[in-house]
Amino acid sequence: MLQQLNKEVLLKRKEALEQVIKRRFIYQPAFSLYGGVAGLYDYGPVGCAIKTNIEQYWREHFIIEEDLFEIAATILTPEPVLKASGHVDRFTDLLVCDSKTGTGYRADKIVTETLENRIAKEGDKLAADVKAKYLLVIKDVDTFKEDKMKEIIAELQIKAPETGNDLTDPTPFNLMLPTIVGPSTKLPAYLRPETAQGMFLNFARLLEQNGGRVPFGAAQIGLGFRNEIAPRGGLLRCREFQMAEIEYFVDPNEKSTFKKFNKYINLEIPLLSRQLQADAKLHQPYKMGDAVKEGIINNETLAYFICRTYLYLVEIGINPINIRFRQHQADEMAHYSSDCWDAEIEMSSGWVECVGLADRSAYDLNAHSTATGQKLQAARKFKVPQPRQVIQIILDKQKIGKELKKDGMTLIKYVEALPDDEKQELSEYFQTHEEKVFNIDGKDLTLNRQLVKFEQKTMNVMEEKFIPHVIEPAFGIGRILQAIIEHSFNQRDDPQKTYFKFSPRVAPVKCSILSVVQNEEFDIVIQELTSSLKKLGISCKTDNAGVALGKKYARTDEIGIPFAITVDKETLTAQSITLREIETTKQVRVPIVEVPRLILELSNGLILWTDVLNKYPLFAAKEEDA
Amino acid sequence: MLQQLNKEVLLKRKEALEQVIKRRFIYQPAFSLYGGVAGLYDYGPVGCAIKTNIEQYWREHFIIEEDLFEIAATILTPEPVLKASGHVDRFTDLLVCDSKTGTGYRADKIVTETLENRIAKEGDKLAADVKAKYLLVIKDVDTFKEDKMKEIIAELQIKAPETGNDLTDPTPFNLMLPTIVGPSTKLPAYLRPETAQGMFLNFARLLEQNGGRVPFGAAQIGLGFRNEIAPRGGLLRCREFQMAEIEYFVDPNEKSTFKKFNKYINLEIPLLSRQLQADAKLHQPYKMGDAVKEGIINNETLAYFICRTYLYLVEIGINPINIRFRQHQADEMAHYSSDCWDAEIEMSSGWVECVGLADRSAYDLNAHSTATGQKLQAARKFKVPQPRQVIQIILDKQKIGKELKKDGMTLIKYVEALPDDEKQELSEYFQTHEEKVFNIDGKDLTLNRQLVKFEQKTMNVMEEKFIPHVIEPAFGIGRILQAIIEHSFNQRDDPQKTYFKFSPRVAPVKCSILSVVQNEEFDIVIQELTSSLKKLGISCKTDNAGVALGKKYARTDEIGIPFAITVDKETLTAQSITLREIETTKQVRVPIVEVPRLILELSNGLILWTDVLNKYPLFAAKEEDA
Repeated sequence: MLQQLNKEVLLKRKEALEQVIKRRFIYQPAFSLYGGVAGLYDYGPVGCAIKTNIEQYWREHFIIEEDLFEIAATILTPEPVLKASGHVDRFTDLLVCDSKTGTGYRADKIVTETLENRIAKEGDKLAADVKAKYLLVIKDVDTFKEDKMKEIIAELQIKAPETGNDLTDPTPFNLMLPTIVGPSTKLPAYLRPETAQGMFLNFARLLEQNGGRVPFGAAQIGLGFRNEIAPRGGLLRCREFQMAEIEYFVDPNEKSTFKKFNKYINLEIPLLSRQLQADAKLHQPYKMGDAVKEGIINNETLAYFICRTYLYLVEIGINPINIRFRQHQADEMAHYSSDCWDAEIEMSSGWVECVGLADRSAYDLNAHSTATGQKLQAARKFKVPQPRQVIQIILDKQKIGKELKKDGMTLIKYVEALPDDEKQELSEYFQTHEEKVFNIDGKDLTLNRQLVKFEQKTMNVMEEKFIPHVIEPAFGIGRILQAIIEHSFNQRDDPQKTYFKFSPRVAPVKCSILSVVQNEEFDIVIQELTSSLKKLGISCKTDNAGVALGKKYARTDEIGIPFAITVDKETLTAQSITLREIETTKQVRVPIVEVPRLILELSNGLILWTDVLNKYPLFAAKEEDA
Repeated sequence: MLQQLNKEVLLKRKEALEQVIKRRFIYQPAFSLYGGVAGLYDYGPVGCAIKTNIEQYWREHFIIEEDLFEIAATILTPEPVLKASGHVDRFTDLLVCDSKTGTGYRADKIVTETLENRIAKEGDKLAADVKAKYLLVIKDVDTFKEDKMKEIIAELQIKAPETGNDLTDPTPFNLMLPTIVGPSTKLPAYLRPETAQGMFLNFARLLEQNGGRVPFGAAQIGLGFRNEIAPRGGLLRCREFQMAEIEYFVDPNEKSTFKKFNKYINLEIPLLSRQLQADAKLHQPYKMGDAVKEGIINNETLAYFICRTYLYLVEIGINPINIRFRQHQADEMAHYSSDCWDAEIEMSSGWVECVGLADRSAYDLNAHSTATGQKLQAARKFKVPQPRQVIQIILDKQKIGKELKKDGMTLIKYVEALPDDEKQELSEYFQTHEEKVFNIDGKDLTLNRQLVKFEQKTMNVMEEKFIPHVIEPAFGIGRILQAIIEHSFNQRDDPQKTYFKFSPRVAPVKCSILSVVQNEEFDIVIQELTSSLKKLGISCKTDNAGVALGKKYARTDEIGIPFAITVDKETLTAQSITLREIETTKQVRVPIVEVPRLILELSNGLILWTDVLNKYPLFAAKEEDA
């Protein structure tokens, strides 16, 4: 059944698909009435329902299965948070402008396009060394910093494409959308560029909900925003996009083993490792257990989420042959990251990153700790006491008492109760300072370094603090939706007759209810059936218009309704209907009373169409079902 | 069973409830680590799950039941759209600032609070006429325009509350959050203040999906933003808030009758009509059929959605006794609105508007038509031809031909083919202009008014165009969630033992799976049960800790898990568990194999706890279930 849907197959169907996307309003550019805004799309009823179904199944597959804590944090985010996370300084693309018209371009894109055009246009006339230089630049341009980009633009004489004018020097353009909150405080803020920060900021609250234990995961489904310089590719690069992210907090000592990973050690998944990329080879299937053993994937926790992601994508209707996991090159990853993989899906535009799975180490919790002075830590509890180097503070209590009188005791108690890491910090502080002022209950009390000694000592402890590491699977819902639509789209023998082979749980509407001809008695049955399906929360679409049944099927096929119920003469005598499946177009005869539960179970994936074929008598389609 | 939850009862429980909200992270102020931002809240796992469930049931109750077109439009909205909708000019509150510190206040709030304080403080010492004046101002202050507000502030000597400084003159402060899209176009935009505009802008696309027919409805669930001057009241007045809105497009000639309204004519709903408010009376129950007949509610379409809204609120767990529908006063409504009702829910802070149901007439479609020059119309088709006044254009074809040569025929064809409304516009135009230039296929062709005559004529037509009216039910999800939490909160005989009596479909987690004592054999059963529940998409929470069962029940009660499964010794011998319901704390013994389906049907509302009590043997709780 599985068909290799390579770029060529998908490209061939693309025009027909785009017509359906427009005609049936699956999604369309936003604000078309007002001339449109690049990078903004509205989902119509079909697209919106698929999006809801993808998200709902994401909840079942990840949140319910892994007992994740789903939260809903805000989009509005004050500047200091994004300063700490690094986004204010580093969430940028290099921007160049037409020096006369001011039109802006993304520097890496304009360099790539210009050089690709030259190669295509000049062909064999291009000197071999020039062509080699061009190809090298195209390969590396997205890693260039300002200076290097400026140098290349000058050297290769890159100009504004529409006008041929000079380009301004490349400058970093921050991709966050700014706003101002409040009338008088005028707090600078941004629309969040990812949902992740909301989960880091709520770490301590969630840890408490989990009884202080790691591992646990937080999850969030919501919008992210990127003020793209050059949005394009439909849903692939938008300025406003739906994401689903998990932040899985683990003890760094324990992330290499993940108990539930055992059941996937024999699961084969196509990997494009760093090594394969260096050798210019294609992705190839690995048993996941081997991939971890051989050190291709850094740890079992990361590997487990790669498995779960793969299974999710397949379950919602992505063609497994068109999925691969590509490992980031060392220079692609953030410096703190120990490993990073993208789930890429092959679409008409090539391989597209749809899910990113990164080991972010302790970077984010550390960053917010540093910025706020609040510790974001968990405790590792031991079953038997463990020897640990601890720092001990020895105070000259007598002298302190003499100096500070009754405040002396307050100071002594306070300093002795400091947590280990703060004692450590204090010992380092006194290496360069003579005294330290503590503000205790509103009173400044000074401790002189002459009155303190520090001693390292091995002690048996029952727990120690640590900053958890984070494994982050981050899903781009719009990209996944685009992939599902491309992979599900099909044409029958007559290429005008198009249909989507959606997985029933993803299908925007679960079933259509049609009449074979217009007839008031049929309408009553249709109404009753509709009402009993709706009571079970099943979306359905009725069509009792006076057109040929074949035309009605074509309409429901076009938006991928997997099951069609048809009411005919026999319905009135035998209390049964025909049930048709979209891909096979086979029909069976089913007693009306059994229909609602049957559709419910088909929609939830509890039973399959083959089960239905085994249970009910096949119905021979008449000529009207052309 | 129903208990009147008036403000006093709710206030008494409020402190205990707030402790639970914080301790179990139902929702909490956002960005607390960074000092917090007023009016922004994060939903924790419990709040987020309730929110998702409320939204999911909204989809079933409204979108699936009424076959609405759900869309997902963008939050980023370019300025011209919101200029046309009136938000740029009129979506404002009056702002006054402390003349020395610059702190901003909402003018109506500061006037109200100052006067209420004076009345409370001075009591009987306050002269009767002064007190009467104060009360009148408090009643009307939210309708004051700038001048009137300035006058009252001066006359009543209202000062900045913290400092006693003078206040600046009231100025309208726009409540939309501004941003800028794109690096070079720098398009001024706002975060949408409501989801409605996205549905108006997609009207033509949705009409096409509905085969050109009205009525039909669009729906959207998503975030809205308001840059509140003084956010407060927890989830009640936020700067970022989840909404669920319906725009139901109807033929204005047909909105007075709505077929499905028939089934609700005997439904009794508490109404606080304009007349009752004028008479200073309380709300009182009306049969909805009578309310329309007596002209209290303007039309059946609006009344139908009031009924559906009422039923939705009750189904998700709002106490029916604490719901009323309050009609807007004439001066509260927009000028274009023919009727408007708020679903108000009584909470600890009084009656709170949670849903607004407005007849917005053709205002919005008209506004976007005018701004863009694109017609947003539907067609009324007649079964038999109907006589209509139509305008006829009579051209002096000979003279036009002479003047324009072969372009003459182009102009004649073009003008004769103009739609009726444009012919009407042309006739009005020629009353003050001598000639009109038409750009046809890139060529400017001039028509002189001497060569045209217009005639009104009665003709039989098969259809006519019209701009649909809109009935808009708009739900504030955060406010409804707050109401559910307040109404569901309960304390047992020991007030420390709190629980939520959530409707099972709203409950954040559907069931807990507990062990009576720690035991490895029990753990295996718990794992198997958990796994089979998760396969059905049922959220559950296990607790096999070594604490007393009573304590485990208390933990699950505290977050309102409606059903608790307990594994005990008999489980191993008889393959059965006990199932406990949260409110009654009654338990029954159920065979393990029947558990997953039972919990699924209880969670979906397909069966009730009373059904379970009838079917399974009661289990006598031991002392550990204290």
